[in-house]
Amino acid sequence: MTNLTLVSRNRSFGGWQFVYRHYSAVLNCEMNFGVYLPPQAEKQPCPTLYWLSGLTCTEQNFINKAGSQQFAAEYGLIVVAPDTSPRGCNIPGEDDSWDLGTGAGFYLNATQMPWAKHYRMYDYVVSELPEVISANFSVVPGVQGIFGHSMGGYGAIAIALKNPGMFKSVSAFAPIVNPCQVPWGQKAFQNYLGDNQSDWLAYDPIHLVKSAQERLPILIDQGDADQFLGEQLQPDVFAQACAEVNYPISLRKQAGYDHSYYFIASFMGDHFAHHAAALTKG
Amino acid sequence: MTNLTLVSRNRSFGGWQFVYRHYSAVLNCEMNFGVYLPPQAEKQPCPTLYWLSGLTCTEQNFINKAGSQQFAAEYGLIVVAPDTSPRGCNIPGEDDSWDLGTGAGFYLNATQMPWAKHYRMYDYVVSELPEVISANFSVVPGVQGIFGHSMGGYGAIAIALKNPGMFKSVSAFAPIVNPCQVPWGQKAFQNYLGDNQSDWLAYDPIHLVKSAQERLPILIDQGDADQFLGEQLQPDVFAQACAEVNYPISLRKQAGYDHSYYFIASFMGDHFAHHAAALTKG
Repeated sequence: MTNLTLVSRNRSFGGWQFVYRHYSAVLNCEMNFGVYLPPQAEKQPCPTLYWLSGLTCTEQNFINKAGSQQFAAEYGLIVVAPDTSPRGCNIPGEDDSWDLGTGAGFYLNATQMPWAKHYRMYDYVVSELPEVISANFSVVPGVQGIFGHSMGGYGAIAIALKNPGMFKSVSAFAPIVNPCQVPWGQKAFQNYLGDNQSDWLAYDPIHLVKSAQERLPILIDQGDADQFLGEQLQPDVFAQACAEVNYPISLRKQAGYDHSYYFIASFMGDHFAHHAAALTKG
Repeated sequence: MTNLTLVSRNRSFGGWQFVYRHYSAVLNCEMNFGVYLPPQAEKQPCPTLYWLSGLTCTEQNFINKAGSQQFAAEYGLIVVAPDTSPRGCNIPGEDDSWDLGTGAGFYLNATQMPWAKHYRMYDYVVSELPEVISANFSVVPGVQGIFGHSMGGYGAIAIALKNPGMFKSVSAFAPIVNPCQVPWGQKAFQNYLGDNQSDWLAYDPIHLVKSAQERLPILIDQGDADQFLGEQLQPDVFAQACAEVNYPISLRKQAGYDHSYYFIASFMGDHFAHHAAALTKG
């Protein structure tokens, strides 16, 4: 297992929940990621499902709180959960706020200083991490899905739309699907990409879905008691953009649910069923 | 909802995960507890299942990591998870070590100073907390089970054995079932109960099972890769004591599992099935 350092391993639902650490050449720093190997992985290659976490998270939140291992074991999926940003890069201001810098990589490639040398989470998730996974674990080549929460739900949708054919399934919990028009997205895009708002469109799901080259159905769950729903998330705006171009989306409003991992865990089984239907058929 | 302060509430699996704070007259301090109300609780009284956590835990560990809400919703059980000790009582030494004082109440009534005025977790769990629950939530009177992990698995078994008829089901994950002979138990008993080891027997599962007045079957799951298995837990000694008096116990050794919540979550469904069979029948 070249270049990976084992941080922890725990037996879980008949498989293993690992955390590994490695040096990322893309991000120019050490990075942790979680990877769950289901029981099926002992005997055969398995499809891979990538999870992208939200603001402030490390790889730990998802692997501790989402209840994913039960379903990964049921369907025989390898689940990879990276960290949400570079860490400890000594960039001025990287730890000044929880929605920029550390814990807030926004799954894009920063072009602006002081971020551009490290904050390249888009390339990390799209290129480097899949290479690390396929080099070290027995995956079914080319059979992978992606999902995430909040900033990570945005990341999953944007990355799937920008890379037609790369993923066979995509879904999100409470994603930031209108980033160009909401405070979290505007702060990130302005700092990482600069003041020219036309440069933001390359990462805007609203823009991307209008020129989508494939029709990969998107499942979105959104709690209607989510405190960030109106100001930061705005899934109805994205659903409207999808409707305008006949892009298939299932946006489910879940009554009484908030933005927490209690919400995520409650519908984790549904999302695994959605991904498994695409990843394990035949 | 008299005398309870809401700390948090999150929609979860169609029900609600609450955390409440209240003043405990038994412990002479403010205490938090978690209580999950399943969807069924909106329409009818539900049975109650008490969870006792292990060393260092608060009420948060279980409600975040155990994956209990899925099964509580499936079976229609109210699940109550108290904290593991009094906190902030300004007792000399209460925060000096992780296995005594704060986070380490050991579910007993301390008789020794400086602990005796606050450290009465036995009375809290057996008397005060059930009164608080039945006064504030719609429970089925007298239909309750108890389970826990490590120190809390010990607590669940000791409390069930000491109170025949009070619980209809009991189970434990990696319980400290030979406390008089292991370092964790000896340290706690010596400090809380004093040097006279005959006083320890009132809380010793090995002693209690030999004079048990009922035959409530005990389910125990124990990981065989648990780092505390030989030195602190010793379930085989307890199983032997049960065998000597024909007390019904199912001790399952789980290959590769450790002492963590990954282990607990992996078998949470089995434990809920065990409790639901006793709590929800006809």
